[in-house]
Amino acid sequence: MQEMFQRALKIMDIVLSKDLDCILLVDVSNVFYVSDFRGYEGIFALIPKEHDPLLFVPKLEYERAKEESKIHVEQYTNFSAALIESLRNMKCKKVGLCYKRTPHTIVNTIKTKLPNIELTDVSENIANVRMVKDTDELERIVEAIRIAEKGLEEALNTVIDGISELNVAAKAEYSMRISGSEKTPFPTIVASGPNAALPHAVTSSKIVRKGEVVIVDLGATFKGYVSDLTRTISVGKVDGKVKDMFQAVLEAQKAAIRAIKAGIKASDVDKEARKTLEEYGYKEYFIHNTGHGIGINVHELPIVGEKSKNILKQGMVITVEPGVYIKGYAGIRIEDDVLVTKTGCRILSRFKKDLVD
Amino acid sequence: MQEMFQRALKIMDIVLSKDLDCILLVDVSNVFYVSDFRGYEGIFALIPKEHDPLLFVPKLEYERAKEESKIHVEQYTNFSAALIESLRNMKCKKVGLCYKRTPHTIVNTIKTKLPNIELTDVSENIANVRMVKDTDELERIVEAIRIAEKGLEEALNTVIDGISELNVAAKAEYSMRISGSEKTPFPTIVASGPNAALPHAVTSSKIVRKGEVVIVDLGATFKGYVSDLTRTISVGKVDGKVKDMFQAVLEAQKAAIRAIKAGIKASDVDKEARKTLEEYGYKEYFIHNTGHGIGINVHELPIVGEKSKNILKQGMVITVEPGVYIKGYAGIRIEDDVLVTKTGCRILSRFKKDLVD
Repeated sequence: MQEMFQRALKIMDIVLSKDLDCILLVDVSNVFYVSDFRGYEGIFALIPKEHDPLLFVPKLEYERAKEESKIHVEQYTNFSAALIESLRNMKCKKVGLCYKRTPHTIVNTIKTKLPNIELTDVSENIANVRMVKDTDELERIVEAIRIAEKGLEEALNTVIDGISELNVAAKAEYSMRISGSEKTPFPTIVASGPNAALPHAVTSSKIVRKGEVVIVDLGATFKGYVSDLTRTISVGKVDGKVKDMFQAVLEAQKAAIRAIKAGIKASDVDKEARKTLEEYGYKEYFIHNTGHGIGINVHELPIVGEKSKNILKQGMVITVEPGVYIKGYAGIRIEDDVLVTKTGCRILSRFKKDLVD
Repeated sequence: MQEMFQRALKIMDIVLSKDLDCILLVDVSNVFYVSDFRGYEGIFALIPKEHDPLLFVPKLEYERAKEESKIHVEQYTNFSAALIESLRNMKCKKVGLCYKRTPHTIVNTIKTKLPNIELTDVSENIANVRMVKDTDELERIVEAIRIAEKGLEEALNTVIDGISELNVAAKAEYSMRISGSEKTPFPTIVASGPNAALPHAVTSSKIVRKGEVVIVDLGATFKGYVSDLTRTISVGKVDGKVKDMFQAVLEAQKAAIRAIKAGIKASDVDKEARKTLEEYGYKEYFIHNTGHGIGINVHELPIVGEKSKNILKQGMVITVEPGVYIKGYAGIRIEDDVLVTKTGCRILSRFKKDLVD
């Protein structure tokens, strides 16, 4: 018998440890996790205790799925019918579902058609498994980071007085795409001047002007895994106040990174960033978490925030991205992607940060 | 009192017609529909019978949401707490939810914390409302189509013997981005030679060669609304067989488009395409639906397929995209975006199709 795909095996471990008959996955990211198949909506995967894992796709995806998938592929004609049929055929009584990523309508269908099935939420178990990356996942993320760094390089070379935010984003995205990025995992943010005060600013046709800072927040996707990096760049000389904000964010990021190692609370990493910003007098202007896990999705566990319950573990990959945002004035954010190790961490992104003067 | 945002008003009509106290929306596309706010996960909207519609966002989105949203904005600290609190405060007993786009975990939370609430599935009602576009939505889609046509133009100018699929995609996406596309709504497909036989081929580093056809399937996003266009381009002269496939698909598309008008079954449009391909001997090689609605999502109702129950209505915007796929050999697809009118249809995309010789 062929060895089982490593990531599918980790989900199988949940099936066994929770004494389930199978786990049913219906969302694109979990299905990709167990199969390596880059699908669209309308696919599902079954990890049954007593059979090989199965991927179900519609007819138009069948040939591609057979090429890409690391688990056995079946094609279906009707999604719901195939789902019910396969649960019934495999005599699954105890079924694990990721409630956080399963539309209520699917739960309803199962409860109606197969009233004897006992459903269990495995959202947390799956998220916990997905938090810790294996070597192959890490290599993909590192490649996605290398590609994103090419995007940052292009942005840095492009940002001058008179160019539009959109133009900078377009050039950075082109550079990532040509370097092998499968897609931008989130809309690239190029936010200049007062726009930089909005953490999730929408890149606009605004013209970048001398004396402004520009936040560039972008990511790439490589073999289904993403990166997420931010740099803040000044156009010519900026106010002393902006330099002070930049210094504060840089120090906050360093403090947070210093705190990272396996076994500590994610909230303690956040605390370090927040404490530094408080010392600089910017605590109230830091209006989001210090970071989050990355992987197949841009936002995965752990949450690196004040109220996070997550404990850092070896093999997690997290962003560290403190920021300071002053409405109508300016914003600063610096973000790296960091691997948690046993004794500390490894900063996976290498792009220079000292870009404001 | 301010006039209510037109799209929110349409959801309010569902609240009233189904005698609900409110509709709760938790997914990004429905929340955008009622608010015009381009958010990420972790936002929700309430359309209550007896209050103004409300958008809830986390702190980091508050300032941007106030600028973008067409409905009142509140900020929350804890998503679930805010959701439960607002349903309780507004004394909502009968709550409509889009079961298809609501994670089961949210339904669970509501049932646990507010056991007296009666939930109703309004998935179909919302999908039906969103199917028919108003003038503003149509203008956004048309602009997204104009931008996508610039991408097709760039692809057409770029496709030559020796270039990689990825390179063509990168250039087309750059051209769309610089023309104002907010994001590619789906991964651009550039599939050459045998790759073109996979309807959802992943664009690769494969080099395009003389004698091959290249399928280019791309879209743009403008003010949150998308386009979806496909052309098949030959590189130099192709086999007579490929020309025949192309002719068949072109005729099938024409036949389908001729059938479109308000009042007819979507399945009848599909039937016309399928019948034409059968006449050419390619019926079994057409392995997907003839089309689908577009709007905020790339795949919306109506489904233009064999088993569709949808009836076409004035104001729907659908794709018409028959295709023929012969494994290991080649594939052809031609896709336009079409507005359903009272007496027929208006083809919104204008890009030339005669690109195979």
